Amino acid sequence: MKTLHFEKQAVCPETGARAGLLHTAHGTIETPVFMPVGTQGTVKGLTRKHLLEELDAKIILGNTYHLYLRPGHKLIEGFGGLHGFMQWPRAILTDSGGFQVWSLSQLRKLKEEGVLFRSHLNGDQHMFTPESTVDVQLSLGSDIMMMLDECTDYPSSHAEARKSMEMTVRWARRGMRHYRERMESREPRNALFPIVQGSMYADLRRECVAQLGELDAEGYAVGGLSVGEPRELSMEMTEVTVPLLPADKPRYVMGVGAPEELPEYVARGVDMMDCVMPTRNARNGYLFTSEGKVVIKQAQYREDSRPLDENCRCHTCTTYSRAYLRHLFQAGEILFSTLATLHNLTHYLDIMRRMREAILLGTFPEFLKTARRLASSPNSAHTS
Amino acid sequence: MKTLHFEKQAVCPETGARAGLLHTAHGTIETPVFMPVGTQGTVKGLTRKHLLEELDAKIILGNTYHLYLRPGHKLIEGFGGLHGFMQWPRAILTDSGGFQVWSLSQLRKLKEEGVLFRSHLNGDQHMFTPESTVDVQLSLGSDIMMMLDECTDYPSSHAEARKSMEMTVRWARRGMRHYRERMESREPRNALFPIVQGSMYADLRRECVAQLGELDAEGYAVGGLSVGEPRELSMEMTEVTVPLLPADKPRYVMGVGAPEELPEYVARGVDMMDCVMPTRNARNGYLFTSEGKVVIKQAQYREDSRPLDENCRCHTCTTYSRAYLRHLFQAGEILFSTLATLHNLTHYLDIMRRMREAILLGTFPEFLKTARRLASSPNSAHTS
Ligand SMILES: [Zn+2]
Ligand SMILES: [Zn+2]
Repeated sequence: MKTLHFEKQAVCPETGARAGLLHTAHGTIETPVFMPVGTQGTVKGLTRKHLLEELDAKIILGNTYHLYLRPGHKLIEGFGGLHGFMQWPRAILTDSGGFQVWSLSQLRKLKEEGVLFRSHLNGDQHMFTPESTVDVQLSLGSDIMMMLDECTDYPSSHAEARKSMEMTVRWARRGMRHYRERMESREPRNALFPIVQGSMYADLRRECVAQLGELDAEGYAVGGLSVGEPRELSMEMTEVTVPLLPADKPRYVMGVGAPEELPEYVARGVDMMDCVMPTRNARNGYLFTSEGKVVIKQAQYREDSRPLDENCRCHTCTTYSRAYLRHLFQAGEILFSTLATLHNLTHYLDIMRRMREAILLGTFPEFLKTARRLASSPNSAHTS
Repeated sequence: MKTLHFEKQAVCPETGARAGLLHTAHGTIETPVFMPVGTQGTVKGLTRKHLLEELDAKIILGNTYHLYLRPGHKLIEGFGGLHGFMQWPRAILTDSGGFQVWSLSQLRKLKEEGVLFRSHLNGDQHMFTPESTVDVQLSLGSDIMMMLDECTDYPSSHAEARKSMEMTVRWARRGMRHYRERMESREPRNALFPIVQGSMYADLRRECVAQLGELDAEGYAVGGLSVGEPRELSMEMTEVTVPLLPADKPRYVMGVGAPEELPEYVARGVDMMDCVMPTRNARNGYLFTSEGKVVIKQAQYREDSRPLDENCRCHTCTTYSRAYLRHLFQAGEILFSTLATLHNLTHYLDIMRRMREAILLGTFPEFLKTARRLASSPNSAHTS
């Protein structure tokens, strides 16, 4: 049974960066890819037209935890899954819900069986198990589903991290068994990726990869990063983990990153990424541009007639002034969220497209060198 | 000097309803027209593309009070006026700010000279005079500017209403004198409409029309309605006032109305209307449909797979289910405001287009009869 087909197109001989095509039941995704986050069945601030026509996003992410609680996965299933409910014709990846249980819910209680939690909406008690989260995601109809994992706290002792990682592995075995049973009677449309944990310990990461590798999944994710650790550690763990993952399968690092980090992950062989940063920062007035970060509320933009980013061809940058954007932000207007989100995501997706092109053309090492030089300049998005 | 050209195309012999073309410096407006309200330089929830391509709105309204306070009319003037600032290529009408001073600002103090008020944003003291509000609106570059008036409280005694109306007339004389001086050195691109006041007293309304008529303005507005009076009174005042206004000039009733009231105003010879109802109600989850009002948060829509309005061809109705709209509303998602506003305004503008067509075809009396029958049905938007 094969639900995905990953076609590698080029590998940078110097860095190992990969360009490929990921064929799903809802279209083909050009990789490396950044996936906009559509938490509750919508990418906040954008319409479907923005996503399809302006951003040309080939895949978006949905959050199982949120959709399970509201409006409920069974309701969504009745509408033909999330694709039908939100009328999104292209690919969808959903997380398992484990991360939101860890970060949002009240009274989280870990058991061997699964994780017991209270809804952040109304305090109702629920349980997620490796099996139930597969079922919920099958109801959602995700093209790529994620395995329930335990996101280890940072920092954790080696002993705690081992315990947590071993739980993640046991859950992955259960989840995969359940998934394969379910798939016996279904069209092969929904892939399931296990998630590598192990906190910031290289030996645990390696051990986790080895054990999850036995599951022969159609793709693998690296989780437990972006949980508060310094950026160097995230990179180190990526470097340790990713090369051990099957080279013929897509590799997804979850929850990263800042714009100038995208090339670093790609240079480490990562094919897929997601992060709330471009969308959440946009709504808060933090805009990423080719010349660094713009904090739009600053008085310096009050009468600034220049476009937000002269090198960007998005609707926001080709139509409006910084002064108008600042006015909308100050006035609390919805249109600000829309225009800002459109720009930030365009910025991210353009970086991804340029990297992909560079890998295909064999010029990725030069791209990376330039990107690193810009990232270390004083006005870069990362340093400000 | 002529800044507008109003071309009457048809008049319903039975009701007096009019269809026409209002030619402005920023394009031609088909009347009768409903003008979407764009308070702070944006129609809340919509993009320019929605307005231009989906709604095909030919004119929108801006609020002088808001724009004067933030970002400031001088700043906007530096961007080529509101057209340049918000990149809106079609016509703009701005109010004088008087109504918002009356409804929003703190410590309003009326003087013969003008109205003293404190900003609702930061408490700063400002003064609007008949002259200054013309100047502010010239900075904004509005195609149609409104005269500073005093919006009389409802209810008011006849004596109070007379006093207030007479102030409005004196202000209009001053404003018109100032406007004509200003226009001597300018391109004829900005019209100025005086506003008829007189509370709910027919004799005062008539007297006000007579006095403002002497100013020979290019159009006239009826103000002081929708201030809390019963609907019958608003209609009565419209009936008293509108037929006395110059027949060859556009007639604008400010701040009205509910969807089923639109035909009533048009039937009384009104050419232009505006109201926050479709946009504000949309954001609050109150949706107007051809079959009555839909309060989207109601549990009955939880699993409702039908479109919001089966008779509407807007993007919202042709793409999404009521269940999805309800989910977006319950989740507090921005996309709800966008989709709901798009629908409610489509509903309004479609009513206007259908009325215009009926007037041109000579079938307006039948249209009105049907509209009245629907309005009196138990599920109508007005009665619920
Ligand atoms: Zn841009
Ligand atoms: Zn509609």
